[in-house]
This record gives sequence, C-alpha cells and structure tokens, in this order.
Amino acid sequence: MILNTNGGINLGNVKPKKKLAIVTCMDARLVNFLSEKLGVKRGDAKVIKNAGNIITDDVIRSLVVAIYCLGVEKVMVVGHTDCGMKSIDVEEIKKKMIERGANPYFTPNLKCWLGKIDDEEKNVIEGVNIIKNHPAIPKDITVEGYLIDVETGELKKLC
Amino acid sequence: MILNTNGGINLGNVKPKKKLAIVTCMDARLVNFLSEKLGVKRGDAKVIKNAGNIITDDVIRSLVVAIYCLGVEKVMVVGHTDCGMKSIDVEEIKKKMIERGANPYFTPNLKCWLGKIDDEEKNVIEGVNIIKNHPAIPKDITVEGYLIDVETGELKKLC
Repeated sequence: MILNTNGGINLGNVKPKKKLAIVTCMDARLVNFLSEKLGVKRGDAKVIKNAGNIITDDVIRSLVVAIYCLGVEKVMVVGHTDCGMKSIDVEEIKKKMIERGANPYFTPNLKCWLGKIDDEEKNVIEGVNIIKNHPAIPKDITVEGYLIDVETGELKKLC
Repeated sequence: MILNTNGGINLGNVKPKKKLAIVTCMDARLVNFLSEKLGVKRGDAKVIKNAGNIITDDVIRSLVVAIYCLGVEKVMVVGHTDCGMKSIDVEEIKKKMIERGANPYFTPNLKCWLGKIDDEEKNVIEGVNIIKNHPAIPKDITVEGYLIDVETGELKKLC
C-alpha cells in the first residue's frame, strides 16, 4: 500500500485534480453542459450521476471511495431545473412494466423505491444534509448544494 | 398524463434523443472523454455514474425511470481500464474512517458494501447480465457491455 502526499491511498492516475466529487442527475441535458458551466475538465473531478441526484446508499458508497481512496475534499450536489423525477407517475410506470412483461412487485413499495421528488431545491438541500450527517463521511469534507438552470446554465448556490 | 409517440410518459424536454442510457464509472478521466469517444452530445443520452459502474439497486432505479418514462431503448454498460475499484483496500479505508472520526460499522459488512471488483471486463459482463435478468427491466431492451481504454479511448465490445 503506497500512500500519496495528501494521505489518500494511491490508485495510479485516478485521483481528481480538483479534489472534487460532483453528484448530479442522469438528465441528458446535463451531458457536457454541466462540466462546461462548472469549468470541469477531464481528470478534474469524480462525477456521480443517478435519477434525480438523490443521495442513495450507492452515492454514499461512491463518495466513500472518492474521499478515502482518491483524496476528494469537496462534494458538490448539483440538482437542476425541470427535473423529470418531479413528474414520475408511479401507477403509470407499474402499468407499463406489466404491459412489457416486467414485474413491479420485485420491491415491497415501488413508489418509495423510485424516490419521486417534490421540489428540486429541497431535494438538493436534503441530499447535502444526508451526506453531512452520514456516519461514513468525515466532518472535514466540504459539502455544498447547487441548482443549475438547464436552459441558461445559471448556477445557484443553495447551501 | 400525456403519452408521447413512442409510448413513453411525457416529461417535457428530458427524453434522450438517442433513446440511450449509458452506465459508467465516476472516474475523473472519463469526464468529457467518454461522451466524445461515443459521439454523445448534450441531450443524446441519460448517463448514470458510480464507483466501478457496478449495477446496484440505484442503477436499476435510474434505468427504470429512463426506460418507462423517457423512452430509452438501449443500455450501454461501459467499464474502463485501470479502474480504481480493483485496488481498494477495505482495511485501509476502515482505518482512515476511524482516524477521521467516521464510523465504519454503519453497515454489517463494509467489504461487501464497497463492492471491490476483481476484473473490469468480468464486472461489465456481470452487470449486463444483472440488468438483462432484473424483474423490473423489460426484455425488449438492448443491453450491451463495453470497455474503454482510458489512455487511447479505444472502445471494446464485450457482450
């Protein structure tokens, strides 16, 4: 085990230059757009993406690796305007799953599992609080929440 | 509820033009690089990213939204060479967590929870199989596995 100068575990060239992890949405409109607006280039930051930038167990897992192995010191949670996760209709999804031969009963509560959000800003603020208070995340990490306008690219700091 | 022409649920402008979802790694070297090598532009595809492009429950959740609400018809799982998830040292992470005031005992099995991978290609192939066989995913979806070389950008189809 080789330790690098900032105390992270050496994993070759995978450490992000800006010591930054970005958690954001899978939305197609953010592809290339968000990195451009944030001034993030290849090699600069770890980027974690899911439906609705919801801070799930898997996001915490990725952040744990980013923080303890890759020297990440700052996490930005970036939601966006017009997020599809506000509009999902769980009954409609269930109906479509059955129509296409899938099984919506693999989970005891599909609605809860899907994690519909009510408000993009509130979702980001809650996500930041989940990260800050998670037992696996050290207190010396900076965690900030932002909302990006998918039309204009304007970035608003929420917390 | 408004249905669009391809039977997806209308969520405004969020539908990806290429009807594609890409599941890949959070690695900083893939930022901008993967989309460029795949010829994916803003608006073309949903992009899901985590540590090691491991097909977790959260990835399936994001794919369910992408498929049933956003008209995605094809999923590409893209692993990469020199993945940090092969090199993680669980005992070292545990030690660092304690040193920095975090608690590694929030989960009954930290090693299992972190999901260290043995081989990048095998991990992609297993991931494709998880998606194809998941009860929530319809059989009419195309799922393919690839490995990208982070040095050269060469894309190898695995399955």
